[in-house]
Amino acid sequence: MEIRIVKTLEDAFKHTLKDIYYAEKTLTKAMPKMIAAVSSKPLKSAIEEHLDQTKGQVKTLEQVFKSIGEKAAGEKCDAIEGLIKETESIIDEADGAVALNAAVLAAAQAVEHYEIARYGSLREWAKVLGHDEAHELLTGILDQEKAANSKLTNLAVSAINKAA
Amino acid sequence: MEIRIVKTLEDAFKHTLKDIYYAEKTLTKAMPKMIAAVSSKPLKSAIEEHLDQTKGQVKTLEQVFKSIGEKAAGEKCDAIEGLIKETESIIDEADGAVALNAAVLAAAQAVEHYEIARYGSLREWAKVLGHDEAHELLTGILDQEKAANSKLTNLAVSAINKAA
Repeated sequence: MEIRIVKTLEDAFKHTLKDIYYAEKTLTKAMPKMIAAVSSKPLKSAIEEHLDQTKGQVKTLEQVFKSIGEKAAGEKCDAIEGLIKETESIIDEADGAVALNAAVLAAAQAVEHYEIARYGSLREWAKVLGHDEAHELLTGILDQEKAANSKLTNLAVSAINKAA
Repeated sequence: MEIRIVKTLEDAFKHTLKDIYYAEKTLTKAMPKMIAAVSSKPLKSAIEEHLDQTKGQVKTLEQVFKSIGEKAAGEKCDAIEGLIKETESIIDEADGAVALNAAVLAAAQAVEHYEIARYGSLREWAKVLGHDEAHELLTGILDQEKAANSKLTNLAVSAINKAA
């Protein structure tokens, strides 16, 4: 999110929306590499499932843009770039070790938390700004992200860590 | 977090510990700029309070290193660099607008969520690895971060957004 001019909450809302749109699109490209890398079956299927969900979220974000009369557009987001860079360096250098599962899982959780924070802000701002349709759509995505995060947390405390 | 070799969970634990230590130290330098920039009094005092807490957490992390027989050391963390870069560009370019409060608050929440994810992983890994003292210390920090996040969330849904 390179915010150039944040003069009003409306501007902050639009910039953050572009930021998370960029982030979700980037994640749809990064997740297949995570899926290929991990050996844990429950983790693999959790990421696969979340990839499908993420593709749906990209479309939902396009509806959000439409609902406020804006064209869908991304804006480079330093935070998600950093998170993905971390994950990719883990995959490249873990050399197939079992602990890779735990490390990729931790990276996926960090991404989920980032998204929960962003959608939480966006959802509140949409409400304050009177963007009712956007508020509803963003609340739907936030609920999906929270559920995905709970699923990852359950995996984290189960067999994956213990096997490492 | 530039993970070079993540062969075992013990390695992942140490690398992530170095990553969060770097992140907390970097934040103690970045927060005074946020405090100076915001005009909302409750937000200013929430960040001031969290700065004190963060300084304490840096010391607690040094105890964690000591408890596992390691020297405290940081490792550059791309994710936190990205989050701070975003926050600083908001501050530099918002030109004193009221929405700055809402945008800084959102950035602070994104940082908290990142930390909650990292301490959640570290705490679990410490348990699996039998680092009981580290587990206890990290759980203490995780609880502080969760409380700080709740405080920010309460601020976010109150007067700050409405004033923007």
